[in-house]
Amino acid sequence: MDYRRFGDRILARFDKGEEIHEQLKAIALRENIKLAEVSALGAVDDFTVGVYKVAEKKYYANSFQGPFEIVSLTGTITTMNGAYYAHLHMSAGDEKGEVYGGHLNRAMVSATCEAVISIIDGTVERRFDPEVGLNLFAFQS
Amino acid sequence: MDYRRFGDRILARFDKGEEIHEQLKAIALRENIKLAEVSALGAVDDFTVGVYKVAEKKYYANSFQGPFEIVSLTGTITTMNGAYYAHLHMSAGDEKGEVYGGHLNRAMVSATCEAVISIIDGTVERRFDPEVGLNLFAFQS
Amino acid sequence: MDYRRFGDRILARFDKGEEIHEQLKAIALRENIKLAEVSALGAVDDFTVGVYKVAEKKYYANSFQGPFEIVSLTGTITTMNGAYYAHLHMSAGDEKGEVYGGHLNRAMVSATCEAVISIIDGTVERRFDPEVGLNLFAFQS
Repeated sequence: MDYRRFGDRILARFDKGEEIHEQLKAIALRENIKLAEVSALGAVDDFTVGVYKVAEKKYYANSFQGPFEIVSLTGTITTMNGAYYAHLHMSAGDEKGEVYGGHLNRAMVSATCEAVISIIDGTVERRFDPEVGLNLFAFQS
Repeated sequence: MDYRRFGDRILARFDKGEEIHEQLKAIALRENIKLAEVSALGAVDDFTVGVYKVAEKKYYANSFQGPFEIVSLTGTITTMNGAYYAHLHMSAGDEKGEVYGGHLNRAMVSATCEAVISIIDGTVERRFDPEVGLNLFAFQS
Repeated sequence: MDYRRFGDRILARFDKGEEIHEQLKAIALRENIKLAEVSALGAVDDFTVGVYKVAEKKYYANSFQGPFEIVSLTGTITTMNGAYYAHLHMSAGDEKGEVYGGHLNRAMVSATCEAVISIIDGTVERRFDPEVGLNLFAFQS
C-alpha cells in the first residue's frame, strides 16, 4: 500500500494480497481522518458482501472467488465513540461481466485497487439504533 | 431523515420507510442547493429503476422487492427553469448478491440510507432535447 | 459534447454517438487536467468492459449491445510519463435491470452521459509493474 495526500484528497494504491478494509483503516489512522467519502476501483479475487434482513436484524453473507473487477466501491469514514468506523458497499464484475455486490465485509486485492479518499472537515458519530439493529449516523446538535 | 452540512458537503441519513428522491429534494430545497453531486449507499426493500429506449423515446420500468443493498447511487442535482431537478441512477444487490439497477425512479429505505451531497457553486440548467426525448444539460454561455 | 467548469469541478454532457473515453480525454487535454476523480451516469448502447486475469497478465473483454443505463462509472485521470491516462470502470443495467460491468474499454453514448470531473491539484504518475502486468500508481517522494 502507498498513498499521497493532496489537500483534502488522498489517492491510494492497495496492492496484491492486501485486504481493502484493513488498508483503508491504516491510512485513516495515520492521517487522523475522522470524516471522509471513499471511492475506489480495482481488481479482487476473493470478497464477501452482506445483505441485511431488517426483520431478522441480521446480515447474510455472500462470498465470491475468481477474477473480479470492482465496478463500484463507495462509502464513508465516520466515527463511533470517537473511533474509526468505515461503511463501504461494493460490487464487482466477473469473467462474463456479471455483477455481484452488497455491504462490504472483506475484499482481497488481486492486481491493484485505486482509492480516492475525500476528507471532510467535521465529525459524524454513529449510534446503535435498536429498532433497525444497525449503527446509524447520529448527528450532534 | 436528518443531515448536517460541513462547508460544501452534506451528510444525510434517510430512514426506514422514507423514499430517497423525496428526502433528497427536501434537503436541497431547505439548503437552497442549485448544483451538486450525489452519492449514497444503504438498504432498500422496494425500488423501481428505468431503462430508456432512445428509438421509442420512452422509459421502461423494472420494480424489485425484497432485501437489497444499494451498491451504487450516483447523480446530480441541477435545475430546469430554475427549479430543482435530480437525476440519479442506482443499482442494488439482492440476497444472492446479484445486482440490478438503472435510472432511479423510486426507492424505499428499509434500514438506512447514507448520502453525501457535494455542493458546487454554480448552476447547470436543463432543456428538453426533442431528438433524444430527454432533459439534457444545457450550459449557458 | 459540452461542459462547464466551476472551480475545481467540471460538469460535462457527452452526446448520442460519442465515445466516453474519447470525450473525457478531449476535456482533460483542453483543461490541462493532470489529476482528477471522475464519476458519470447515462445511457449507452454498445460497450466493452474487461476483466483482468492476473495469472495470465491479460485482459479478457465482454461486449454488450442494446439499451443500457450506466449505474456506475468511476475512476481517475492521472499521468504516465506526463501524458494523460484515464482508468475507468463501468457497470450498466439492461432492459431487465440486470447489471454487467468491468474495466471500461469503450462505451458509446445512446442518449446522454453526464459526468462530474473533480480536479485535484497535484500529479500522480503511473509506472508499469512487471509482477502485476499493469500500470500502477507510482507516487513520487
